[in-house]
Amino acid sequence: MAQNENLRMEAIVSLCKRRGFIFQSSEIYGGINGFWDYGPLGCELKKNVKDSWWKRTVRLREDVEGLDATIIMHPDIWRASGHAAGFADPMVDCKDCRKRFRADQLCEEQGLQLVKTDKGFELPAGCKCTACGSANLTEPRAFNLMFKTYVGPVEDENSIAYLRPETAQAIFAEFTNVIQTSRQAVPFGIAQVGKSFRNEINPRNFTFRSREFEQMELEYFIKPDEAVELICGHVAKLTPETDLSEPQDDWGWEIWHRYWVEQRRQWLIDVGLPPETIVEYWQKPDELAHYARACVDFEYTFPFGTQELEGIAARSDFDLTQHQVHSGKSMEVFDETLKNAVAQLDDAAKSAFRDKVVAEWVSRGKDAEKAGAFVDRLFEGKYIPHVIEPSAGADRMTLAALCNAYCEEEVPNDKGKKDVRTVLRFSPRIAPVKVAVFPLVKNRPELYEKARAIFKELRNHWNCFWDESGAIGRRYRRQDEIGTPFCVTVDFDTLENGTVTLRDRDTMQQERISVSDLVAKVGALVD
Amino acid sequence: MAQNENLRMEAIVSLCKRRGFIFQSSEIYGGINGFWDYGPLGCELKKNVKDSWWKRTVRLREDVEGLDATIIMHPDIWRASGHAAGFADPMVDCKDCRKRFRADQLCEEQGLQLVKTDKGFELPAGCKCTACGSANLTEPRAFNLMFKTYVGPVEDENSIAYLRPETAQAIFAEFTNVIQTSRQAVPFGIAQVGKSFRNEINPRNFTFRSREFEQMELEYFIKPDEAVELICGHVAKLTPETDLSEPQDDWGWEIWHRYWVEQRRQWLIDVGLPPETIVEYWQKPDELAHYARACVDFEYTFPFGTQELEGIAARSDFDLTQHQVHSGKSMEVFDETLKNAVAQLDDAAKSAFRDKVVAEWVSRGKDAEKAGAFVDRLFEGKYIPHVIEPSAGADRMTLAALCNAYCEEEVPNDKGKKDVRTVLRFSPRIAPVKVAVFPLVKNRPELYEKARAIFKELRNHWNCFWDESGAIGRRYRRQDEIGTPFCVTVDFDTLENGTVTLRDRDTMQQERISVSDLVAKVGALVD
Repeated sequence: MAQNENLRMEAIVSLCKRRGFIFQSSEIYGGINGFWDYGPLGCELKKNVKDSWWKRTVRLREDVEGLDATIIMHPDIWRASGHAAGFADPMVDCKDCRKRFRADQLCEEQGLQLVKTDKGFELPAGCKCTACGSANLTEPRAFNLMFKTYVGPVEDENSIAYLRPETAQAIFAEFTNVIQTSRQAVPFGIAQVGKSFRNEINPRNFTFRSREFEQMELEYFIKPDEAVELICGHVAKLTPETDLSEPQDDWGWEIWHRYWVEQRRQWLIDVGLPPETIVEYWQKPDELAHYARACVDFEYTFPFGTQELEGIAARSDFDLTQHQVHSGKSMEVFDETLKNAVAQLDDAAKSAFRDKVVAEWVSRGKDAEKAGAFVDRLFEGKYIPHVIEPSAGADRMTLAALCNAYCEEEVPNDKGKKDVRTVLRFSPRIAPVKVAVFPLVKNRPELYEKARAIFKELRNHWNCFWDESGAIGRRYRRQDEIGTPFCVTVDFDTLENGTVTLRDRDTMQQERISVSDLVAKVGALVD
Repeated sequence: MAQNENLRMEAIVSLCKRRGFIFQSSEIYGGINGFWDYGPLGCELKKNVKDSWWKRTVRLREDVEGLDATIIMHPDIWRASGHAAGFADPMVDCKDCRKRFRADQLCEEQGLQLVKTDKGFELPAGCKCTACGSANLTEPRAFNLMFKTYVGPVEDENSIAYLRPETAQAIFAEFTNVIQTSRQAVPFGIAQVGKSFRNEINPRNFTFRSREFEQMELEYFIKPDEAVELICGHVAKLTPETDLSEPQDDWGWEIWHRYWVEQRRQWLIDVGLPPETIVEYWQKPDELAHYARACVDFEYTFPFGTQELEGIAARSDFDLTQHQVHSGKSMEVFDETLKNAVAQLDDAAKSAFRDKVVAEWVSRGKDAEKAGAFVDRLFEGKYIPHVIEPSAGADRMTLAALCNAYCEEEVPNDKGKKDVRTVLRFSPRIAPVKVAVFPLVKNRPELYEKARAIFKELRNHWNCFWDESGAIGRRYRRQDEIGTPFCVTVDFDTLENGTVTLRDRDTMQQERISVSDLVAKVGALVD
């Protein structure tokens, strides 16, 4: 981290503590590494981020249903998903000082790269303990990141359960319940916001990599490309000209994936990240999980480096298939349109289609028999849906919003000199306080009561702040520092003509507007 | 449970599953006892309950700050709170069939009462295993209800941590951070909504007693009565005539407690529980925790019995004092008003005050030396705040809302006969869907597009549902069953004169209103 970026991050962390955005968990007991609490302003900010995601992803869409599942689920879910066996980081111990490291981070800090082998990982030559300098290190060993607990009164192998390391698997586990009780058909999605837990060996970068965090995940289920082809006669090709504004029947996974990339980009912009700060990173073939067809990461340049904010993955039918195998419950859907389309085909057309699919699967290294069975099910109108997974982090987004908003600038003061103004330039949509209301003076009951009445009216709509102490300029600065987009000052003119001053955080301009226009004017920008 | 109440509960559980309110967690893997997932409608319902609590408790009050702390905290917090040592249920094993029971529940099911002893508990004579009938039972043994896990890469005594069994302790642990960063002074409160975990031996009654649940807790910090007396010269007495509408400076803990009881009752009514269904139960002296001065439970009569919805406890300064002792960090506040009031007293008045307080403490069985030290601190303007704790359960409130709303009624059908209508009479404020929009017919593009435009407009304000299939009567029934308070039908008159029919769930009456009045009309009832 460059020195000035380091200082910038320190200033942000310091503001977060000083103004009640984020505290260290259990601070009075010396803290607990990797856990952070959101204070009065932080919890409003994060709630606004989550509510904005929920509104855009669930409430404004007819094709997405919400879910709120438990953090502790049946442990077989993690066997099916692969987390029980494979959700592990390679870990290294220093045999001299007994400190423990995440192998990749230990290498990275020394400008080295962890070596991938058939069996796992190896340390590169020259790698040392960063604590004591010893080269006497263990080989990297897998360490499962799931927090373990026991459910029920007996602590044994049979009662082990895990805190979910992601919210996504609950969506797959409840897939059949949701599709049976909602009136959805593929394509459609299921969304969830909630806490997840990963026992990170080395939590770091403030709230960026913590052990308890909150995710906002969508699993959007689509038809396999082969079903689209049977229904539409073709699968649309993704080109630079593809219109992504409205989903179309002939979209295959590639366009759906691109569609969700653009949908998610738009949300990041909506909650305040400038488009030019969002880095779109396409994972390379060797970085992709074996079942994934593509994965795009949106990255943001934090003061501590450019890091992942959210990933949008095309995960094929891997997850639902795994749960079908492990639970013995069918994850197939019946698609009437597909059945009807197949009914139009004669035997020769079916046979040709089957041959084409089998050849295509075999060319991708897959099993011919499985391909044939898949086509047979398609001909009955049945398939396991594929999925596109936009997976975002509420804490990461909140931290990006804080980092993006933080600004120190010189502004002229009353005496013709310059002051430094600290301002959080949040998007009004996610700002923790929307409007602050000030009576110009405290000692004029009529003016004071009028200001109280305006405050109480605005508070019905949004989170508002009342401040009656100190010079107006100081009250503005206090609000600037917490990112309040608007301040309303009630003065003597208010009593005369029913207008107030509305002051804009970013331009610092004031305009006089009628009290009766306040809700509409502010609402247009913050809702 | 009486037979008809039993059937009623079965009908509610069945509706919850069928319409996507509540599913068993991990159902495809055979479920996991004591864990429940909220489906598409359930998560909206519960979110509305939580948001309503948050708005009333935090956003509409200037004297309450929000907090969103982690579920895993430093384990010393649970030593300080007493949970590590004492948060246990007595448990009994059958030595013959090896089944395990909660001792109090085992007794209760046989019409017996568990016997409290100096050391713990004993089974009453005649108590048997309800599974196999054997009297060969172990003595009751304490079983800690906290879920245990390990934080960090090493599993040993030093890395043990717990999932919080309540949200309240995080509030006490962050008390000093919040008071230092917000502009609050006692009296003020800190509120939190979030998941808690209790490893119940015998989870039961649907979502009522589950192992993972969500709490809505407020800790409202007040001055000790002795400080109020120094400041105001007296402590107001609670009488049937006490006006509880606006907090007053001379309130002691008793009026503050009563104030919060009434505040909370009002919220239960606001979210839809009829006042006559809310039972107010004052815990008897032998039921109170040793530090508690009073505790009121609000109970609701579920089909499975009258059970606690929420408790409002006066907990003295017990919690903050415990954290001061265990963390070594001061939990005192400095109260300028108190300091100024004390400065008016001469030595004789101080001495008399001290004698009175010491005598009063001693009469309550407390230590004279501690009483004296407390008065000395008061004279410096310092004290540890006392606390009133309204503690509600989001899942219990959601379940009460479901039980209260569920109704089967006979209504005349088109053919002059009677149909049974299932309706969920939710308060519009918490109903998962606020408005459903129907085009009268599908095949008139102009009408259809008009209906879509109205739907899209309303959806910006609330969660809405679009339904274009089946007869209007059937569409009404579908919405009745999920508790949607309003249905809007767009028909040919809409095209003529810009009006729609607005149908009320409860009265089943329709009125024609102008499209331009819809948002205001519906908003007045649902917001």
